[in-house]
Amino acid sequence: MKVYLAGPDVFLPDPITMAERKRSLCAAHGLTGIFPVDAHPQHPEEAEVPRWLWIYRRNEAHMRDADAVIANLTPFRGPSADAGTVYELGFMRALGKLVLGYSNVAADFVPRNLGFLGRSARRDAEGRWRDGMDMAVEDFGLADNLMIDGGIKEAGGIFVRRDVPESARWTDLAAFETCVRTLAALSR
Amino acid sequence: MKVYLAGPDVFLPDPITMAERKRSLCAAHGLTGIFPVDAHPQHPEEAEVPRWLWIYRRNEAHMRDADAVIANLTPFRGPSADAGTVYELGFMRALGKLVLGYSNVAADFVPRNLGFLGRSARRDAEGRWRDGMDMAVEDFGLADNLMIDGGIKEAGGIFVRRDVPESARWTDLAAFETCVRTLAALSR
Repeated sequence: MKVYLAGPDVFLPDPITMAERKRSLCAAHGLTGIFPVDAHPQHPEEAEVPRWLWIYRRNEAHMRDADAVIANLTPFRGPSADAGTVYELGFMRALGKLVLGYSNVAADFVPRNLGFLGRSARRDAEGRWRDGMDMAVEDFGLADNLMIDGGIKEAGGIFVRRDVPESARWTDLAAFETCVRTLAALSR
Repeated sequence: MKVYLAGPDVFLPDPITMAERKRSLCAAHGLTGIFPVDAHPQHPEEAEVPRWLWIYRRNEAHMRDADAVIANLTPFRGPSADAGTVYELGFMRALGKLVLGYSNVAADFVPRNLGFLGRSARRDAEGRWRDGMDMAVEDFGLADNLMIDGGIKEAGGIFVRRDVPESARWTDLAAFETCVRTLAALSR
């Protein structure tokens, strides 16, 4: 089973080391990990297209090849997960692949939003939290926007949340390993 | 042609009025607009599942029925678009649908990130912007994470950006109408 390793891990100072750590954990459980920056045989760098478009095409090809995705959904520059990762989650769900996710921040979506909004958050007449521009804060006791939790649920996956020290937010792989172990069990 | 109207518009104080405005603009160009909160004949509210899961299932059903998506990608609580909307963009791209997007903030992704990060942003030895946790800021001169711009590009769509007064950020539909007009032309 091939698993696409989605996440903002590609923005780390040393993404290659993270790719190797994640791939090793996958291999230890009998899975083949595919990291976004891995070369794709049918998608060598194309001189005639902009680099970002070539990266997009390579990532799409990796996803179509994979049987499952494990997404790093740790909140990234705001209350929600990284936008590129969330796009890939929706993409994999639409293709009917297995979808799993993890976050190194355990708090629910509402308290994370309230922490982000600070004093601009207020309750409306119905008691619903709204931001300074009157946009509601989604409140279902979930980990992120319901499309994320829902996609994982409908795809038969799990969303593992676990607090780690802030300095280890982008490197701790305990929650990731729980996803790997679960996926290995599901694929047997 | 049926077009799914994705966006954080569902969080407005009066999403129904926005649904009607968007649907009217679609109808004026010969398109059928589907707003997320619209009822779906095969997905009436299910008493036996949590409300968020029923909403997820209804939205998926709406997307599978649609031929295209026009996504409101205006930055939402951070430098990127709303997570639920981005999920739906990836979902629609994977299904091979036409994908269009718009934003009522014209600035590129990098200046938006720098504005968000403030003094925690700094350049690394290679001159690349990084946040306070050493995570790189993606810099391709795009509107958002490259998966978003790339998905729209590969699906043959457009990403319309246009500045509006801040008070009209969630209600101005000029950029949306440009998408509607483009989609109508593409579908002829």
